[in-house]
Amino acid sequence: MSDKAKLIALIMGSQSDWDTMRHAARVLNELEISFEPLIISAHRTPDRLVQFATGAKAKGFKVVIAGAGGAAHLPGMTAAFTTLPVLGVPVESKALSGQDSLYSIVQMPGGIPVGTLAIGKAGAINAALLAASILSLSDNALDQRLTAWRAAQTDAVALSPRDES
Amino acid sequence: MSDKAKLIALIMGSQSDWDTMRHAARVLNELEISFEPLIISAHRTPDRLVQFATGAKAKGFKVVIAGAGGAAHLPGMTAAFTTLPVLGVPVESKALSGQDSLYSIVQMPGGIPVGTLAIGKAGAINAALLAASILSLSDNALDQRLTAWRAAQTDAVALSPRDES
Amino acid sequence: MSDKAKLIALIMGSQSDWDTMRHAARVLNELEISFEPLIISAHRTPDRLVQFATGAKAKGFKVVIAGAGGAAHLPGMTAAFTTLPVLGVPVESKALSGQDSLYSIVQMPGGIPVGTLAIGKAGAINAALLAASILSLSDNALDQRLTAWRAAQTDAVALSPRDES
Amino acid sequence: MSDKAKLIALIMGSQSDWDTMRHAARVLNELEISFEPLIISAHRTPDRLVQFATGAKAKGFKVVIAGAGGAAHLPGMTAAFTTLPVLGVPVESKALSGQDSLYSIVQMPGGIPVGTLAIGKAGAINAALLAASILSLSDNALDQRLTAWRAAQTDAVALSPRDES
Amino acid sequence: MSDKAKLIALIMGSQSDWDTMRHAARVLNELEISFEPLIISAHRTPDRLVQFATGAKAKGFKVVIAGAGGAAHLPGMTAAFTTLPVLGVPVESKALSGQDSLYSIVQMPGGIPVGTLAIGKAGAINAALLAASILSLSDNALDQRLTAWRAAQTDAVALSPRDES
Amino acid sequence: MSDKAKLIALIMGSQSDWDTMRHAARVLNELEISFEPLIISAHRTPDRLVQFATGAKAKGFKVVIAGAGGAAHLPGMTAAFTTLPVLGVPVESKALSGQDSLYSIVQMPGGIPVGTLAIGKAGAINAALLAASILSLSDNALDQRLTAWRAAQTDAVALSPRDES
Amino acid sequence: MSDKAKLIALIMGSQSDWDTMRHAARVLNELEISFEPLIISAHRTPDRLVQFATGAKAKGFKVVIAGAGGAAHLPGMTAAFTTLPVLGVPVESKALSGQDSLYSIVQMPGGIPVGTLAIGKAGAINAALLAASILSLSDNALDQRLTAWRAAQTDAVALSPRDES
Amino acid sequence: MSDKAKLIALIMGSQSDWDTMRHAARVLNELEISFEPLIISAHRTPDRLVQFATGAKAKGFKVVIAGAGGAAHLPGMTAAFTTLPVLGVPVESKALSGQDSLYSIVQMPGGIPVGTLAIGKAGAINAALLAASILSLSDNALDQRLTAWRAAQTDAVALSPRDES
Repeated sequence: MSDKAKLIALIMGSQSDWDTMRHAARVLNELEISFEPLIISAHRTPDRLVQFATGAKAKGFKVVIAGAGGAAHLPGMTAAFTTLPVLGVPVESKALSGQDSLYSIVQMPGGIPVGTLAIGKAGAINAALLAASILSLSDNALDQRLTAWRAAQTDAVALSPRDES
Repeated sequence: MSDKAKLIALIMGSQSDWDTMRHAARVLNELEISFEPLIISAHRTPDRLVQFATGAKAKGFKVVIAGAGGAAHLPGMTAAFTTLPVLGVPVESKALSGQDSLYSIVQMPGGIPVGTLAIGKAGAINAALLAASILSLSDNALDQRLTAWRAAQTDAVALSPRDES
Repeated sequence: MSDKAKLIALIMGSQSDWDTMRHAARVLNELEISFEPLIISAHRTPDRLVQFATGAKAKGFKVVIAGAGGAAHLPGMTAAFTTLPVLGVPVESKALSGQDSLYSIVQMPGGIPVGTLAIGKAGAINAALLAASILSLSDNALDQRLTAWRAAQTDAVALSPRDES
Repeated sequence: MSDKAKLIALIMGSQSDWDTMRHAARVLNELEISFEPLIISAHRTPDRLVQFATGAKAKGFKVVIAGAGGAAHLPGMTAAFTTLPVLGVPVESKALSGQDSLYSIVQMPGGIPVGTLAIGKAGAINAALLAASILSLSDNALDQRLTAWRAAQTDAVALSPRDES
Repeated sequence: MSDKAKLIALIMGSQSDWDTMRHAARVLNELEISFEPLIISAHRTPDRLVQFATGAKAKGFKVVIAGAGGAAHLPGMTAAFTTLPVLGVPVESKALSGQDSLYSIVQMPGGIPVGTLAIGKAGAINAALLAASILSLSDNALDQRLTAWRAAQTDAVALSPRDES
Repeated sequence: MSDKAKLIALIMGSQSDWDTMRHAARVLNELEISFEPLIISAHRTPDRLVQFATGAKAKGFKVVIAGAGGAAHLPGMTAAFTTLPVLGVPVESKALSGQDSLYSIVQMPGGIPVGTLAIGKAGAINAALLAASILSLSDNALDQRLTAWRAAQTDAVALSPRDES
Repeated sequence: MSDKAKLIALIMGSQSDWDTMRHAARVLNELEISFEPLIISAHRTPDRLVQFATGAKAKGFKVVIAGAGGAAHLPGMTAAFTTLPVLGVPVESKALSGQDSLYSIVQMPGGIPVGTLAIGKAGAINAALLAASILSLSDNALDQRLTAWRAAQTDAVALSPRDES
Repeated sequence: MSDKAKLIALIMGSQSDWDTMRHAARVLNELEISFEPLIISAHRTPDRLVQFATGAKAKGFKVVIAGAGGAAHLPGMTAAFTTLPVLGVPVESKALSGQDSLYSIVQMPGGIPVGTLAIGKAGAINAALLAASILSLSDNALDQRLTAWRAAQTDAVALSPRDES
């Protein structure tokens, strides 16, 4: 990627979340949207969280995508420190299958929003697509790439199921 | 509001959802963001849904806020027909307290995103705020109003609890 | 199968649902009920959905069986566009084991019905059997085949359990 | 209603379920479909259940609508004794809000189908509508009444929400 | 076992439940309590269910242990036809991990009791032990065997954990 | 009641559980089964629990009915100290509607059984009925009273629902 | 209370949480433990949170009791900034009855602990008692007060239930 | 470890819980906190439980860490018999993934507290850390070791995710 400020901060609570969040990275790459992947643990590196979230706007980020699991506080706490749009991805947890992650991210009190996507891989893909939608509002070229991406997705759906061989 | 195209489409599945969604309307008004409230039932008025969703971009809407309850298909189906950002508000349902609404909105498959907010009133408020965040990316005046709104919210938090009298 | 119009439309949201829905296909075959298996994604191919659902009655279908997972909007949206009986099969999802699929299908608002079966394979089998029950109301030969199928099922239940060898 | 055999058996586990199931009765009346409301408790009157279910077809019923709450065995056990289409309505229970009713009705094993509707009033309405869809397959006049009912429902949806006064 | 009437009917909904219910059989054997294992499907063999349940008392059974999964109607329907004590074992189901089985068995309406044990293997073991407790009330020798069984269980608990090697 | 040893110990965790457990008392009275109602809090009066549970058999109790809510340890801990049959009633809790009570009572590990009934009033009624079933095994007069009680219950079910006036 | 540093920081996310957390305050008062009640919203006043949590130890607090509802990040984020013991109270939320609060507080990742109590009033009481237990380890007088408090609680449990009059 | 009284009692309901609880043991070892691991089954060895819990304070233990699964009564019953701080770890159960363990431990009634940690391994680690926090209040050297442990944990978080190779 270029030297320019990245558009998307793609943050996650730990290395283990990367297995999920790399799907967001892949889609951002396909749509040619610059991003910076970062590990920021709300609990183990709270200072890093504060520093990142308070400075994200000044650094030029336009959207934050945040993935976390269990008592997932990263998206909500980031949103508490910035007015940038924050999109949350509940990472599937071991015991509770991501239901704890989902509740911890989506049930924000009125006043601090986190746009929450589905649990796991689908949510990571969709966080990238929603970020693209947002950026497309002021970027016609991206809007066209997104529209083409969506059209290609539509075209890829077969008319009838086939038995696996 | 002025004659100009409204920025936000504030759609909901039924009149009964208005009790929740009017909180989004209130916050949009406070932030001086134009919007158009519409009842669109994915199930009872599917043609209206298709017409709205396929035409929303051309009509000048920038963000769609969609509230629905139970088997809440309105946000996801709207997202299927447009590349505009769609924000979903799970309206609290009678038997399952909005857990059905939440799952129906947030668990979208990879490919079609809906940014989901909390169940009920908090979600409606936050959908408005997230829409404001998105529009602020290319509207400095709104960005300042949003920042002021958030600061006022912070200032309104008392330092210690008081007994109700 | 013959050239005649198929009786059952067996639709599903993606190729991956076929692993579940082929059990419906198998039972329909056993009962000699004609059907057409189709992939229709409510989210990725919404136009295909509208086209199918609005035209299903004219094409001669009598019953629609629709399987989908996660935020499963296919059965309900199909029902929104047709007065044909629609039977929904919640496909087991990864994180939430099909509880999201179930809620998204069964919790339809009053006005648009979807007859919902069990999550997964059992639901697919039963969707075929319920479709057979419905068609049997005006098809004596099918009624006899269904009665025989049910009797054979009863006879196949052993009197006492045996240890696996 | 006339002397003719009723088309629908509208059964329920107890008098207290009538508060829910009368919504099915109302819709059946609106669609001019004859029905017979009966209390049959799978647990307190099991002989009545067996007698009803084994004889329902011979009595001329075409569809059974069965509502029950808690460990709701009435729909499934009825389906075990007949090949008529059985539609189940999970009645909202006190402690678990109908989640127990829903699971007890919808999670039938492969082999014996129950078409399950939503918990509570919406499910009762939809059971009547699904029964109407089924009967419409061989009754053109009913098909027209159902189509008209659905169109009226669509027309009744206002374009925009109004504040309650 | 001897020619005498068996004390316990150990019934289950299908062959696949035997993998769980054989743990009840093992404990009954250890406690020298006679039993008869039977497959009775409430849904696929409802006549067998009626015949068994109405005749269980006359055949000399003292307690019925019934295991079933999903929409598990076997224990409750058996209890509907007999005044013998019925103990229910929720067999772990695929999608919902036995939560559906548990609700379907334990949430019986007032009037017809089923004594419900834990989901899966632990429940099967405990159904046998509870049956032994019941029979012990009028069988001193069994009471002593049960007391000894329990004491041996207590003695088998090590004082401190050991690392697996 | 007479001077004789009571047959049933009807224990509960607190005064507030009596509102539920008095339904068990009522049914025991109807069936002329002697019982002693006691408040025993597993957590606030653990010594009372140990003393009761270790001495229950010697005091002549035949069955223990134990009701508790939330982290409901009373039934399971009683069962740990006695080989008498213990029947557990999950009392409906405030926040989690008795789901916590249910899990805490029914999910006992293999080795120590608690026969669990439904959440709340229905469970209390059924605990009394199951205790009656157990005692009936060696008490013909009670068996007849129980059979009559059940028959009266069956007879009391009306044939068709009536509108409330 | 005296001029000395307070021992307990009793923090909560909003004024509305006081209705729950005042039960902790009452018990702390009964045990003569000094405390300071503060409103700190993790989301609306994140700077206040950081300032409080990083300075709590230096200010002389020994234990933090933190109550919050919904996506309850206050206890976990406080724990991220301090090594003081943090006790979390899940406040009952509207739609999800505190299940979201509970998951958001208890499911902390390995590395940052929050000792979580029950949802609602019981949890608030117990947070105060657990704090007392902790402080008692190095305060004999408090240990005696706590022991007396617990003994009085035990003595207050009646032996048998009474009907409300 | 030395001859001195151990500071922590690390108790668990069965050998199988050791796979989870050994993570607590590892962290206690890293922090040089003495502990004694013990198997105490609330249900299979209730006398051992009473003996341990009533004597724990006199034996010199300062904190009890208790892990158990399913109907997990060990932490709460221990807390009933002692005023020492009791920390509970819900061990992941087979069918319900530890949700039953969590509810059985955390939902204690007001009056007897258990500080509950996360389900499984994370909870075991955090129980050790919370115990360390508690002991640190009167042990400066431990406080420094804990602070260093936490700092090392923070330092170990990489800045950006890496692809697994």
